[in-house]
Amino acid sequence: MTTPSAILDATLSRIAPVPPERLAKAWERLDNLTKPRRSLGYLEEVAARYAALRGESPPRIGGKRVCVFVGDHGVCAEGVSAYPPAVTGLMVRNFLAGGAAINALARRAGAEVEVIDVGMAEDPGAPPGLLCRNVRRGTRNLAREPAMTRGETERAAAVGIERADAAAEAGVTLLATGEMGIGNTTPAAALFAAYLGQPAEAVVGPGTGLDAEGVARKIEVVRQALERRRPAGGGALDTLAALGGLEIAGLCGLCLGGAARKLAVVVDGFISSAAALAAMRLAPAVRDYLFFAHVSAEPGHRRFFGSAGLRPLVDLDMRLGEGTGAAIAMQIIEDAVAVYNEMATFADAGIVPGA
Amino acid sequence: MTTPSAILDATLSRIAPVPPERLAKAWERLDNLTKPRRSLGYLEEVAARYAALRGESPPRIGGKRVCVFVGDHGVCAEGVSAYPPAVTGLMVRNFLAGGAAINALARRAGAEVEVIDVGMAEDPGAPPGLLCRNVRRGTRNLAREPAMTRGETERAAAVGIERADAAAEAGVTLLATGEMGIGNTTPAAALFAAYLGQPAEAVVGPGTGLDAEGVARKIEVVRQALERRRPAGGGALDTLAALGGLEIAGLCGLCLGGAARKLAVVVDGFISSAAALAAMRLAPAVRDYLFFAHVSAEPGHRRFFGSAGLRPLVDLDMRLGEGTGAAIAMQIIEDAVAVYNEMATFADAGIVPGA
Repeated sequence: MTTPSAILDATLSRIAPVPPERLAKAWERLDNLTKPRRSLGYLEEVAARYAALRGESPPRIGGKRVCVFVGDHGVCAEGVSAYPPAVTGLMVRNFLAGGAAINALARRAGAEVEVIDVGMAEDPGAPPGLLCRNVRRGTRNLAREPAMTRGETERAAAVGIERADAAAEAGVTLLATGEMGIGNTTPAAALFAAYLGQPAEAVVGPGTGLDAEGVARKIEVVRQALERRRPAGGGALDTLAALGGLEIAGLCGLCLGGAARKLAVVVDGFISSAAALAAMRLAPAVRDYLFFAHVSAEPGHRRFFGSAGLRPLVDLDMRLGEGTGAAIAMQIIEDAVAVYNEMATFADAGIVPGA
Repeated sequence: MTTPSAILDATLSRIAPVPPERLAKAWERLDNLTKPRRSLGYLEEVAARYAALRGESPPRIGGKRVCVFVGDHGVCAEGVSAYPPAVTGLMVRNFLAGGAAINALARRAGAEVEVIDVGMAEDPGAPPGLLCRNVRRGTRNLAREPAMTRGETERAAAVGIERADAAAEAGVTLLATGEMGIGNTTPAAALFAAYLGQPAEAVVGPGTGLDAEGVARKIEVVRQALERRRPAGGGALDTLAALGGLEIAGLCGLCLGGAARKLAVVVDGFISSAAALAAMRLAPAVRDYLFFAHVSAEPGHRRFFGSAGLRPLVDLDMRLGEGTGAAIAMQIIEDAVAVYNEMATFADAGIVPGA
């Protein structure tokens, strides 16, 4: 029997940086297309990175899938969310019925939506379309104790790896992260603070609509969690266990598994970025496979991009999660690949390139 | 016989602001969808504006079209472009053959590409697919004399109005501006300077790849043109004639005609924004129908957005023109409309909205 811990280790060992010569080859193609050199800006960088990470010529966009991991949070007991935890279950039903924002946007992107219960507090039964991979019915309250054990964290991450593998087997090449979990900006903020060495107030924001008093309470909660966590030490996975959430661990696994399978992984917003950051701490080469979709209206997200030297594709003040920003970004990545594959070269068009 | 001047006047008189109550109605719908209020940020504003300007319920995305106006520039004699004017004709053939960036991106957006010779220096003959509406074989050198007469400007604008009308008749609801014309960042910069009251050095940039010496020369050219123009006085149309270009006047007409026909007009980059600015000076209500696609890498473009209080959809450091940024933005507008039309309401999902 393969344990979650062994699955995680095997996945980490399979993640390799994208060879620089493949990137150079992609730029060579782009620089010969009928446009002033680099005049499509960041779109060209996206095309080059996608082509290089896939390593096929011409690069192909295969299947597209948004994996929405769902989990609840013990920390909701501290009053850190504008919505009651029961909304998590209602939104899962909305996803399955196709009525949520992610359904509309994924349809536009031509992407499937997969919904995975990795940590719902409510037992949803087994409604058609829901992948039941519940590790635990909600996390513990991270303000008072570690949110998860190391074992639970590994199990949730292994679910993410499993879903990345399933996507790769199904021919998906563009995989997006999505999540739902009332209260999950709190663990995400705690993870940013811990991994980036930032104080709580730098990364905590209003989430889905907390007032000023609520934000102050949330800052205090994150501060407590960081204090409690500090003496424990341990690595990136222990930090994820102490401060994270089951859907965040699942998404961390999805990033790792996607990179191991050489898929392009489109990271949605604030929560997903915290998961991606955990993945990058576990395996820095993961970064070569990630495309950050958008900068969230949640203020800590901009700080994350600044400190990590990463660039999001769009900035639309979105703060919904679910994978909605990723669904928009997937379309831009596909645009970039279309440019790469379909444009004529200067030689084709009989133009001598200018300066 | 209807003169271009009469067509322009009739169009200006048909442009009406979008009624605020229609916008309010659109927001009412958006605020009832299953997401925290306004959590899709700017995407919601785009959806609301599109729904309000179209005035149909539910709002529908009909046909999509990118109109690429082509013109050459006498000012190229001053050495203001990294490419020779002959590239204009080569790129027109590339558009018609489907090998340019705009072809690839328009295919992705599900949009037709229409190419209109309104001011090419070269006589292209009548290749299949090219709309021959040539007003003049290139403008005069705006550094030394007015680029166009008022009559030529009106004729070019009338071509734009004709193309907006044709699009409306064909069921297009989302119309995008595109252009090709070696040297056209110079007239665009001159127009920004004149309309916004900015000095030449604030709006002139490297265009498709000018070196520092070239940029200095271009600043001097724009400064001369502004000096020469200053005593002439006259209105927005006279400014367009003196400093603009035939494709810019055509695009100005497209914006006006689109607004008159209640189409959403997606404004591409630096050149297109100069045309849209001319249109807004001729009829301020045009603004209600415009969606600015992206902020160009051309430095003056960011200054334009700042001073005009306008917000682009994306910021990808693109500086190619052709309508490429607009083709990406069209997809985001369609995303926004999908959210508006397809999401479940709170009542549908049995959720009581939070704070």
